[in-house]
Amino acid sequence: MTSADTTARLIAALRFDAAGLVPCIAQQHDSGEVLMMAWMNAEAVAETLASGRVCYFSRSRGGLWRKGESSGQVQRLVELRIDCDGDTLLALVDQTGVACHTGRRNCFFRAVRDDAVQEIAAPLVDPRALYGA
Amino acid sequence: MTSADTTARLIAALRFDAAGLVPCIAQQHDSGEVLMMAWMNAEAVAETLASGRVCYFSRSRGGLWRKGESSGQVQRLVELRIDCDGDTLLALVDQTGVACHTGRRNCFFRAVRDDAVQEIAAPLVDPRALYGA
Repeated sequence: MTSADTTARLIAALRFDAAGLVPCIAQQHDSGEVLMMAWMNAEAVAETLASGRVCYFSRSRGGLWRKGESSGQVQRLVELRIDCDGDTLLALVDQTGVACHTGRRNCFFRAVRDDAVQEIAAPLVDPRALYGA
Repeated sequence: MTSADTTARLIAALRFDAAGLVPCIAQQHDSGEVLMMAWMNAEAVAETLASGRVCYFSRSRGGLWRKGESSGQVQRLVELRIDCDGDTLLALVDQTGVACHTGRRNCFFRAVRDDAVQEIAAPLVDPRALYGA
């Protein structure tokens, strides 16, 4: 577990934006797949380190977003990293199920390929099964 | 190469923030290593697709930042992806040398480990060799 002292040291090293947020990239720890990017405030960082489950800050809802709280698709924290200038986090996680609310494993399922914007991954589960109809 | 039409379609699918920027994650295409995160405006996206070399927008300098223009540590674009809600890009790249201005391969060289914020990677090259003394 991470002590309050270490959490405070990490938060002190972060450069939050004007809204008090930093982007956090979630990467599957073993495969290296980039799953998603979302935002954290200091409280979300602290809760993530204390609980071992990734907690973001939802800009649309204006509050803490405990990833998987509705869908069950939680992210267990494996390691939290911070970049050279302290304005981006990288969370190595173990993703339960799918990271994307569309039912895809990761959110980056559109790519520029063969001179077109293409969908390159299909949903693995029906979003209605995750969130209810 | 990417046509102007496809570039326009990708840019139309992006949701830029109030400053006209979207975050772009750079990932080494073969190893899966997350190298860095930086920002792009529409012009940087267009130049990246046209040139095949990753071009960001430098918030500190307020202009286009052709990655590697000073250091030689360029990023060849392998594929550009966009996330589900269009507010984050993922660039699969082939990184020449090191991505981080500190001389490390990637920018995420500090981690919370053993209840401390630790440096987990050493510089591979002296930054003075990249940028001059």
